[in-house]
Amino acid sequence: MIAKTPPMGWNSWDCYGAAVTEDIVRQNAEFMAKHLKQYGWEYIVVDIQWYEPKAVTHVYNPFTELCMDAYSRLIPDENRFPSSAGGKGFAPLAEYVHGLGLKFGIHIMRGIPRQAVHQNTGILGTDKTAREIAKTASICRWNTDMYGVDPEKEGAEAYYNSIFELYAAWGVDFIKCDDICRELPHEEAELVMLSNALKGCGRDMVLSLSPGPALLEKAELYKQVSNMWRITDDFWDQWELLYAMFERAEKWCTHSGPGHWPDADMLPIGPINQVWSKENRTKFTKEEQITMLTLWSIFRSPLMLGGELTGFDAFTLALVTNEAVLAMHQMARHAHQVWRRVIGGSEYILWTAVCAEGGQYAAVFNVGDHNGTIEIQLRDLEIEHASTAMELWSGEESTIDSSLTVSLNAHGAKAYQIR
Amino acid sequence: MIAKTPPMGWNSWDCYGAAVTEDIVRQNAEFMAKHLKQYGWEYIVVDIQWYEPKAVTHVYNPFTELCMDAYSRLIPDENRFPSSAGGKGFAPLAEYVHGLGLKFGIHIMRGIPRQAVHQNTGILGTDKTAREIAKTASICRWNTDMYGVDPEKEGAEAYYNSIFELYAAWGVDFIKCDDICRELPHEEAELVMLSNALKGCGRDMVLSLSPGPALLEKAELYKQVSNMWRITDDFWDQWELLYAMFERAEKWCTHSGPGHWPDADMLPIGPINQVWSKENRTKFTKEEQITMLTLWSIFRSPLMLGGELTGFDAFTLALVTNEAVLAMHQMARHAHQVWRRVIGGSEYILWTAVCAEGGQYAAVFNVGDHNGTIEIQLRDLEIEHASTAMELWSGEESTIDSSLTVSLNAHGAKAYQIR
Amino acid sequence: MIAKTPPMGWNSWDCYGAAVTEDIVRQNAEFMAKHLKQYGWEYIVVDIQWYEPKAVTHVYNPFTELCMDAYSRLIPDENRFPSSAGGKGFAPLAEYVHGLGLKFGIHIMRGIPRQAVHQNTGILGTDKTAREIAKTASICRWNTDMYGVDPEKEGAEAYYNSIFELYAAWGVDFIKCDDICRELPHEEAELVMLSNALKGCGRDMVLSLSPGPALLEKAELYKQVSNMWRITDDFWDQWELLYAMFERAEKWCTHSGPGHWPDADMLPIGPINQVWSKENRTKFTKEEQITMLTLWSIFRSPLMLGGELTGFDAFTLALVTNEAVLAMHQMARHAHQVWRRVIGGSEYILWTAVCAEGGQYAAVFNVGDHNGTIEIQLRDLEIEHASTAMELWSGEESTIDSSLTVSLNAHGAKAYQIR
Amino acid sequence: MIAKTPPMGWNSWDCYGAAVTEDIVRQNAEFMAKHLKQYGWEYIVVDIQWYEPKAVTHVYNPFTELCMDAYSRLIPDENRFPSSAGGKGFAPLAEYVHGLGLKFGIHIMRGIPRQAVHQNTGILGTDKTAREIAKTASICRWNTDMYGVDPEKEGAEAYYNSIFELYAAWGVDFIKCDDICRELPHEEAELVMLSNALKGCGRDMVLSLSPGPALLEKAELYKQVSNMWRITDDFWDQWELLYAMFERAEKWCTHSGPGHWPDADMLPIGPINQVWSKENRTKFTKEEQITMLTLWSIFRSPLMLGGELTGFDAFTLALVTNEAVLAMHQMARHAHQVWRRVIGGSEYILWTAVCAEGGQYAAVFNVGDHNGTIEIQLRDLEIEHASTAMELWSGEESTIDSSLTVSLNAHGAKAYQIR
Repeated sequence: MIAKTPPMGWNSWDCYGAAVTEDIVRQNAEFMAKHLKQYGWEYIVVDIQWYEPKAVTHVYNPFTELCMDAYSRLIPDENRFPSSAGGKGFAPLAEYVHGLGLKFGIHIMRGIPRQAVHQNTGILGTDKTAREIAKTASICRWNTDMYGVDPEKEGAEAYYNSIFELYAAWGVDFIKCDDICRELPHEEAELVMLSNALKGCGRDMVLSLSPGPALLEKAELYKQVSNMWRITDDFWDQWELLYAMFERAEKWCTHSGPGHWPDADMLPIGPINQVWSKENRTKFTKEEQITMLTLWSIFRSPLMLGGELTGFDAFTLALVTNEAVLAMHQMARHAHQVWRRVIGGSEYILWTAVCAEGGQYAAVFNVGDHNGTIEIQLRDLEIEHASTAMELWSGEESTIDSSLTVSLNAHGAKAYQIR
Repeated sequence: MIAKTPPMGWNSWDCYGAAVTEDIVRQNAEFMAKHLKQYGWEYIVVDIQWYEPKAVTHVYNPFTELCMDAYSRLIPDENRFPSSAGGKGFAPLAEYVHGLGLKFGIHIMRGIPRQAVHQNTGILGTDKTAREIAKTASICRWNTDMYGVDPEKEGAEAYYNSIFELYAAWGVDFIKCDDICRELPHEEAELVMLSNALKGCGRDMVLSLSPGPALLEKAELYKQVSNMWRITDDFWDQWELLYAMFERAEKWCTHSGPGHWPDADMLPIGPINQVWSKENRTKFTKEEQITMLTLWSIFRSPLMLGGELTGFDAFTLALVTNEAVLAMHQMARHAHQVWRRVIGGSEYILWTAVCAEGGQYAAVFNVGDHNGTIEIQLRDLEIEHASTAMELWSGEESTIDSSLTVSLNAHGAKAYQIR
Repeated sequence: MIAKTPPMGWNSWDCYGAAVTEDIVRQNAEFMAKHLKQYGWEYIVVDIQWYEPKAVTHVYNPFTELCMDAYSRLIPDENRFPSSAGGKGFAPLAEYVHGLGLKFGIHIMRGIPRQAVHQNTGILGTDKTAREIAKTASICRWNTDMYGVDPEKEGAEAYYNSIFELYAAWGVDFIKCDDICRELPHEEAELVMLSNALKGCGRDMVLSLSPGPALLEKAELYKQVSNMWRITDDFWDQWELLYAMFERAEKWCTHSGPGHWPDADMLPIGPINQVWSKENRTKFTKEEQITMLTLWSIFRSPLMLGGELTGFDAFTLALVTNEAVLAMHQMARHAHQVWRRVIGGSEYILWTAVCAEGGQYAAVFNVGDHNGTIEIQLRDLEIEHASTAMELWSGEESTIDSSLTVSLNAHGAKAYQIR
Repeated sequence: MIAKTPPMGWNSWDCYGAAVTEDIVRQNAEFMAKHLKQYGWEYIVVDIQWYEPKAVTHVYNPFTELCMDAYSRLIPDENRFPSSAGGKGFAPLAEYVHGLGLKFGIHIMRGIPRQAVHQNTGILGTDKTAREIAKTASICRWNTDMYGVDPEKEGAEAYYNSIFELYAAWGVDFIKCDDICRELPHEEAELVMLSNALKGCGRDMVLSLSPGPALLEKAELYKQVSNMWRITDDFWDQWELLYAMFERAEKWCTHSGPGHWPDADMLPIGPINQVWSKENRTKFTKEEQITMLTLWSIFRSPLMLGGELTGFDAFTLALVTNEAVLAMHQMARHAHQVWRRVIGGSEYILWTAVCAEGGQYAAVFNVGDHNGTIEIQLRDLEIEHASTAMELWSGEESTIDSSLTVSLNAHGAKAYQIR
């Protein structure tokens, strides 16, 4: 089964935008293999525009020429990904990543390259052309690379089959498909066609849908066609976005489960935005990073690291290798918010989940702007007798009778395993 | 703690509308004490307009005279409730119910009687009058008995204190307050004032809010001011209403817990609508009744019987005394929908919950119009190894490897405890 | 034909709120007869709550007792209207006003008194009672005197017939009916019933509907059931309200005509709000008053004076007795806005209308905050050759070739007759 | 002044879609010069895709190659427009039309050709390229020829200047710009830039904006940047569309005037849709055609003939050469709807307008489905004394006292000049 637990890995976007190179991918893969793999981290994902020779930051060059094969399929730029030279595509890089004991993923855009449509190039396995399968008024609102593909047109299925066959041949394990997640219901038929092509390509690949916010009323569809889907637009290191994630997680929590994970987006920690300046680091405070990891873990979002791994400091490394917290990410079941209240001038949120190996998790967040101490009633967690609790970040154990006293700095969080 | 588990009882509305009498209340209380009490059923609730001498059905007489004391407080009509004669109110009836080992509840309407306002009668404990505390444009849309009370007005608090003091003196254990649950945010201040008056009256009383649909964005408020709140408008014995309850339950399930229960409304089973004809019985099929009890139980709605208990047939009695199902109602935790899918021409819904004593519940519903057999994957329930399952309605035990085969008639349900 | 031109008169509300008395009515009628009648002013209208003994300002006493006859019909308070003593109602006052050569009007509220409903009094010409015809959930949002009448109920028609027969017997010429104009479509049937009762009462009465804003999509209905209808909520002496009237007038201008007039509300000029302080005067500047009269006149709104006539100063008297402007009010046809533009830092509006006796009107408004001078092109008025223009307020004549140069202070206006 | 009265002419769309040729244009111009010019008809307009070699019907070929010069400017296809060979563009054809005493117009699409953007061709008078001025997410929803031009980009102004300079050099008198009228407010800046470029090109050209429905709240903008703008989506020979035009005309009537005309779209009369079959004729009945011409004329919409002129039968010719009706189209002022009512089972609409040479127009429409006879009251037209009326279509004269009796077939109309 694919994505039986929420995928964990690294993605190039937060740090390198559209401009990641093979060297960077390799160094992050090596770091992961050495320092993170044993904690469950495994995916290495090359984000958007690996086919764009001139990409240098997060900003897209409009209408620019893209690297493409004779069948209207985008291929890696050889200058950025030298091992792809000679028509090898991502096969050598995937092989390298596999050799490290990790898995390899790539980003794609829904649709077919506009340049294929205007040059009217062919499609593998059909006599139809790119121009004949493009959907006339379907474009991405924020990038000019592609036209949508019209599922009604003969040749459309051949095109989607042809690209996933190529990715399977390369050895790809993870597809992050963009410009599709929130484009419902108008592009729903294209999503289903794409998902079917992926499932039929002969290789297991995780399918991750972007960008959010996903539509709650389409939850059952996302579950059936994909493995993870973004519940938010791009998430960055701003408190307002983290604050807003609590409400998103509350709405989506009942839709989590093996093979299907609502996705709160990458973790912008450590060195990020390196294409703009090597000095850039996450703007989240340590408290906020703990809050983020706690929420992502109890909610069971996929965990994709956004920062340059080789620049992780001790705090960041500890943050992503806390075994108790990662165990909660693996073993939480039926997670949900218990309440959200203003108490003594700050705002607090309580989440709980069952632990698959017995006992119960509780996570408490202070999302207000004042430090404070509150009492968590065991009966709010439906626990009826005295218990012991371990705080996951600190490892501190305590005995609790009917309530648990929790001190939290503003924007801080604690997580407990209660037995 | 009040309402630590979802309240269970009997309510007069489905069967007697606005016209229930003391004799009827007594006979249902006696039946409950004898046949149902041992299964957890305990509340006997007198629904709307016990103060209306001319009430004969579910239809309200507009602008009619109501029984009222000198302090603008409604009191039982002595003809309908003879034991209330001499100013005793519901005290004798409550005492009788308590003597049977049960609890006693009444229905009230938000506000103050219009006749008090137009007669300008006094309010206990203040020199203000009914006219001075009424909120000018606040009326109920479906009943002409009351005006809202304006929390801004001096005397408003005294009025609400005075009515709950009276109910406490009578020995009331349960208040179903109407014309309030969906009247937010415009009547929110009145709800808070009413809740505070109830909490301060010196007697524990469950507070139940009607009518629905409650507002999801006010979930935290309902939790803090009341013990149960209606998530739907009046529920009756129509499949469409039962079908729609699945979506309501899905949305509200994370807001359930000790002391605060989303309420799917009374169970219209057995003889109902007796004020219209003694021949009337629930129009739900047996399958549908099992579906209803299964959903209410795993979702943990309060369970209030709507039919005339003394006319319950063997099927109905068995339906409400199934110990395994009622145990699920007591012990389910973190219940939520897993998926909802069209399979083989019918529509199926899967719910799960953790059992407080270990193991897991699963409930499967066929809400489509065709009989069918489906496979439930254990991994959808996040159960990873072979298990045993007991079907709660039949008691049948089975061993399951990786999936459970379930045959369900259209509109039918099964529930399992899996270990 | 009733209201062949837009009605002109005086109304007690702006100055006396709910508290006008017979003496005040008489002194205003006398003033009008002596100083204004010759200019076309003719209606004297007693506004809301002439049946309320305790009214002292614009604020309504909630749920208070009202003067009412045995047939559930409101009658004047004898202390406020002494000539009504002995059951004479408004007949003596109407007769007095008629004797001055003027017409007499009263305000009514849609519906039947709540006190009649709660006392269950009778209705003339039927054995039905007030309680039996009241519409249960139909109340006014801002006044507690009445319940709506349910046109479906037997006796409803008899009630409306009975009140208009009474008003006809009193000699009433003008009915301003409140709580009805914007209460569509939900109270549309009651409006039609009321209009039919008025038309069938045997006496010509203008029917004026309040409060606004009227619904543009119901324009044809208003035309057929009434003679004037409010296009705005209460209008007072605030520039923002006057500014907003231009857009309302633009939308409604094509619905004006003999017998049916969109109504921009009373003119709050001279001494107003006298029930609060004898010092109160309109807060509109002279420029703004000229702007208001110019717009009301070219748009052909009814003109109802809101101030105490006996306190009008020379400016105010001149304002309402300018024969050229009042001629435009009588003779404008097909009036409409030509354009609305920001020019040189201020905002200007141009209206035009045809004159029934030949030539064309143009009105220019500076609704911005800066004095300025603009050129009005004759071709914008579809005038193609040199013309002469008379400014209506000043009487100045000029010759114009292809454009007219107009200097306007901020909030000021000029009006021209062009031949 | 341009478009002092509403433009009158012929447009190739209704008959030839995207596929009109030079021969067709010439034969219609010749017919107009000979038979229609003396009645005021003067514009000959070549509609969409004169630059598309493969166009054969109203259906657009997606992403197809277009004829374009080195400066990213579209030019006529030489096969379809032989006189344009050798880089002469439309100059020879315009000269021919001018020689007939008529004026010449062309259709353009907002923006710059997509093929220019993807080929990255240059722009006259700047070193910027097509790719650099295209607006990334601005496309037409129904045609793939163009990208929008981003007014923020350097080079955008140069592009728009360059195309209007070309059209001026060709001798174009009329520009119908498409994909712009209803694309507000998001493309408002591009509209203003385009309008300014046109005004600055040194040649008078009417600017007509498509497609509708235009936005009523942008009326002042349309007046200032263009000469006519479509108030409806494409209008065809279906009664439902004609019926709906009455409400559109009612809303827009006050925005008509010299130089700025709300446009009810082409008149689909005579032989239309000839690219599909030579047998095609308008599906409007004669009654409906009279209704259409009457509404367009009193409302003063531009009149653009949509059918093949050389195939006009006697009825159609008479329809478009009725001098009395065309005089109303020239001389109506302040036109507006008077009322719209259901009378005796059918629905009637009354319009009126002032005649610039004295007297008044009235048009009566039966838009219901039953023949009928109604009385039009002179006072509804604000005419107060006996008059004479001439029916414009028949020429019949009558004397009217206080009302005019009009018999109308279902979907029929009559128009009167009253003196």
